[in-house]
Amino acid sequence: MNSASSAGSEPQEGDRVRVERDGSSYEGVLLPSSTADHLVLKLDGGYNVAIASEATTVAVLEAAVYDVERAQDVDDLAEEEEGSSVTFDTDLPTISLISTGGTIASTVDYRTGAVTAQFDAEDVLRAVPDLAGRANYRGRVVANILSENATPEIWQELAHAVHEEIEAGADGVVVMHGTDTMQFSASALAFILDTPVPIVFTGSQRSADRPSSDNVMNAVCAVEAAKADCAEVLVCMHASESDDRCALHRGTRVRKNHTSRRDAFETVGRAPLGEVRYDDGETEVWFRRAYAERGACDLALAADLETDVELLKFTPGMDSALLDACEGKAGLVVEGTGLGHVHTDWIPRLGEFVERGTVVVMTSQCIDGRVCDRVYDTGRDLLDAGLIEAGDTLPGTAKVKLMWALANAEDLREAGEAMERSLAGERTARSTPWT
Amino acid sequence: MNSASSAGSEPQEGDRVRVERDGSSYEGVLLPSSTADHLVLKLDGGYNVAIASEATTVAVLEAAVYDVERAQDVDDLAEEEEGSSVTFDTDLPTISLISTGGTIASTVDYRTGAVTAQFDAEDVLRAVPDLAGRANYRGRVVANILSENATPEIWQELAHAVHEEIEAGADGVVVMHGTDTMQFSASALAFILDTPVPIVFTGSQRSADRPSSDNVMNAVCAVEAAKADCAEVLVCMHASESDDRCALHRGTRVRKNHTSRRDAFETVGRAPLGEVRYDDGETEVWFRRAYAERGACDLALAADLETDVELLKFTPGMDSALLDACEGKAGLVVEGTGLGHVHTDWIPRLGEFVERGTVVVMTSQCIDGRVCDRVYDTGRDLLDAGLIEAGDTLPGTAKVKLMWALANAEDLREAGEAMERSLAGERTARSTPWT
Repeated sequence: MNSASSAGSEPQEGDRVRVERDGSSYEGVLLPSSTADHLVLKLDGGYNVAIASEATTVAVLEAAVYDVERAQDVDDLAEEEEGSSVTFDTDLPTISLISTGGTIASTVDYRTGAVTAQFDAEDVLRAVPDLAGRANYRGRVVANILSENATPEIWQELAHAVHEEIEAGADGVVVMHGTDTMQFSASALAFILDTPVPIVFTGSQRSADRPSSDNVMNAVCAVEAAKADCAEVLVCMHASESDDRCALHRGTRVRKNHTSRRDAFETVGRAPLGEVRYDDGETEVWFRRAYAERGACDLALAADLETDVELLKFTPGMDSALLDACEGKAGLVVEGTGLGHVHTDWIPRLGEFVERGTVVVMTSQCIDGRVCDRVYDTGRDLLDAGLIEAGDTLPGTAKVKLMWALANAEDLREAGEAMERSLAGERTARSTPWT
Repeated sequence: MNSASSAGSEPQEGDRVRVERDGSSYEGVLLPSSTADHLVLKLDGGYNVAIASEATTVAVLEAAVYDVERAQDVDDLAEEEEGSSVTFDTDLPTISLISTGGTIASTVDYRTGAVTAQFDAEDVLRAVPDLAGRANYRGRVVANILSENATPEIWQELAHAVHEEIEAGADGVVVMHGTDTMQFSASALAFILDTPVPIVFTGSQRSADRPSSDNVMNAVCAVEAAKADCAEVLVCMHASESDDRCALHRGTRVRKNHTSRRDAFETVGRAPLGEVRYDDGETEVWFRRAYAERGACDLALAADLETDVELLKFTPGMDSALLDACEGKAGLVVEGTGLGHVHTDWIPRLGEFVERGTVVVMTSQCIDGRVCDRVYDTGRDLLDAGLIEAGDTLPGTAKVKLMWALANAEDLREAGEAMERSLAGERTARSTPWT
């Protein structure tokens, strides 16, 4: 507060103050995280702001709202600081950074360690200084797991957290997530949420202690994507082995296609929806196809999931005991061969499942291309048995979608019909299988 | 036999004859499939030959070995015609064409229909006239199935048939196979057989009645590949959407990556081993990497398979009942996430499986890249639990290999060790996961 000219008494940490600068006015509690260069205020709306202290007028409205000398109050204050922004710039959007764990979060959590379930904007900027000046940040931890341990319950917690952040005014959300099951979590949020702002998943294939780490560039590009116009659930990861661009994949169409490469993620069957070009910190976001625009829909959440849904991959010589283990489930996604086939012996068994109320959906282990069971007799037998074709929906996405559809549709018929059309870009327009 | 000048009586179908032409002499039974242009003989060695009838001398050695008027003898004769060659050219190699069914065989079986379990070189040439003049052909049917119905037993029958054909003198083998599980069958033959000649799988993504059918070009290129120097199990399918080249994939490294495209098959992680360039019937076979050369090893067969092996794909939210259904199996291939992960809850359970004698092998659903469970704690826990890393072996190939290793290794330890090295090109040399 060295350069702040105060009207009335000298403002102290814990005072409720009004700060005026460049014609803007902010009212809130002055926080201990204020520095020589910045005043940090807890605003009434819950956000924290940091205001460059140069040429600032500060008026004390109410002294000692918090007693910063008393430990319990300091704790209260520290708690209030959750979601702080190191440097609030009213010209910049506010981006919520949500951590779920994984390699990228192992960086962000570096200072606090894995046991701490909170991190704030200061932690973020300490770990990734390149993020400074791009946005005002809110930090939040939903989980601290390796993503192979993700569950439908964690997808729901994450969806609720993202919903709260957007409700609280975030202009975009970045979800830091382990790469192993990122495509499942991104799909889950795409079905659960209607979003008026971008929700951008990012992660890291190489941890920060490696010279080839991708965490800084991925985080920077994800923040830039979260500021963009595209109000979709996106995955932002390296687009090539160079450090020149990140791809922006639609969350329901992306797949981790390599165990270790930095550009492991690919949009199946076509180029990614967009890119963030990156040149030594300078960025440019662009899109090659149409997308849902910012603000085009209202924020909404439908978080129920029917978790009694299984994905079963068929391979030659498979024991039917595995199929038996799926009997009575609410939903079953079969990862068949080619255009959507399984051994002929399975067909009547799958027909029994359908008769008894299991919604059975066919996808293909080919990954690319669409299932089409009208070509061969055996495929037509599958359709006669009541199986639903998932088009070109990816098998993993189909599993998540079926969980969502069974919990949110009026009945089984409506759930099945939902699998036959696109809800969140997961199924592209019908084409003949021969083009 | 219009142009044939006979010594002695006029030769009749069913006679045992000697045919001389251009200094070569052939002895055998004259078959009813002889035409105005060609004499077709069943040779003593079992091969059928067709000899251009122009400027040919035919001597009857024994009249009426078969009575072609009597139905049962005609049937005998027809049976004898199995493996006939329409035009035998002593300068051309002999290629055995083995049919197992699928879209490509639906062409070849056009005349006889699906119920006939025999086809000969005439059927082949009638269906694909472009094959004429490229080789002498033997035809053989092992199965007539859509390939989703393939089983380990059919792989074994196929391996025995291929073994017999090579023993009988085939210079190369073409296996016509449905595309859905071609990669599994090709892998099975790669493990079961040591081969001194090429074994080339081919198929068709579009049946012959479609203008865009790939069956003719694929068959022609497969025959050319079967004549080549490369004594490996190969998959020969369209390399692009144009009709300009087929790719030659190593059978253990190939995957059907699209449900319907003609160039659906891809060698995972690198370019195919070779190509057959095709220009309106003109062909050129070339290889971009080292391969096992023709004659480099002796023919050998080890056809035993342990069929009690399962492939289980892990996805988030998976019911552990599916894992329970694999308890007590001889082998289990897990298709994990990323570098080879599953939910932490699975690790002790998999450890129990190993303790009780199940060989558990980890692969990755990423498809490309290699598993490496040394990177994260949970991966190291998997290794401590006794799981074996399959490197970059494809999950489907790993299942077939584990079936073979468990049946042919001395004990479980040796079977496990076999999974950690390459037996048939299925696992490439170790590299760090970060390159």
